[in-house]
Amino acid sequence: MSVWSLHPQLENDTTTVGDLALCRVLAIDDADYPWLVLVPRRTKHDPEKWEPVFGKDHASSYVTEIADLGVDAAVLMDEILHASRVLKDVTGCDKLNIAAIGNVVPQLHVHIVARWINDPLWPKPVWGAAPPRHGDLVAFARLVATMRDRLGIDEPNSFSS
Amino acid sequence: MSVWSLHPQLENDTTTVGDLALCRVLAIDDADYPWLVLVPRRTKHDPEKWEPVFGKDHASSYVTEIADLGVDAAVLMDEILHASRVLKDVTGCDKLNIAAIGNVVPQLHVHIVARWINDPLWPKPVWGAAPPRHGDLVAFARLVATMRDRLGIDEPNSFSS
Repeated sequence: MSVWSLHPQLENDTTTVGDLALCRVLAIDDADYPWLVLVPRRTKHDPEKWEPVFGKDHASSYVTEIADLGVDAAVLMDEILHASRVLKDVTGCDKLNIAAIGNVVPQLHVHIVARWINDPLWPKPVWGAAPPRHGDLVAFARLVATMRDRLGIDEPNSFSS
Repeated sequence: MSVWSLHPQLENDTTTVGDLALCRVLAIDDADYPWLVLVPRRTKHDPEKWEPVFGKDHASSYVTEIADLGVDAAVLMDEILHASRVLKDVTGCDKLNIAAIGNVVPQLHVHIVARWINDPLWPKPVWGAAPPRHGDLVAFARLVATMRDRLGIDEPNSFSS
């Protein structure tokens, strides 16, 4: 079994909130859009866990598609619901935008973004638009701490992958 | 219980593939991107089925968020996996892009779009870009028929909502 690790670009672009049962939860520092990213801690060579449906010849060992998760897809959905409810409740947003795209970073990751009908990009999606506009660091740190607390995640100092 | 119906804009913009257990499956005629849309046939006032977490005071009776589905979210995930595998297998695409956005059409709907690394918009998402470029009608009809067959859906003449 390959050892899971976070893709370097996700590592570079985000702050770690912590680990749920399946996913590492990340936060993107965007002043306009509170933004979580869920990354299932699975590799392609984990035969106990799932059936790779998209071919073992794929260039990387990253899981790239939700369908690659097999039975873990149900856990991913549970964690999407959990994170959705917390993000909605904490931010009071008008809408959540949820997506698994992965055209740039191949490691499967699910965006959960809080949107408002008067935010700068509304109604366009945030993906493929300008890079995040970084905001106040203290406010972002507070959001990360709140999300960690509300998601029921311990301090991220002893990850199990 | 409210009676479920498809949002008029989705009706206008798509062709019906048919009904899975939870979702109506639609196809968008886009010559560059084979594109399915899954719409859970649920209303907000369906207390046997789910707990509305985002407030009963919402303007419409449409389910707008995945988290509104409650236990049906697991069925949605099953149907996303099923449609993903079929779309990938039929098209031989390089990547699937999957999203629940709903900033324009409030009724919850999940896009599943086939992408190639040499397609016109790669690596940008298709949402928020130009409208679909309609292609050959016969080819599109063939794709819809193939998807219907491979998804195991009967001809859409007797929908149960």
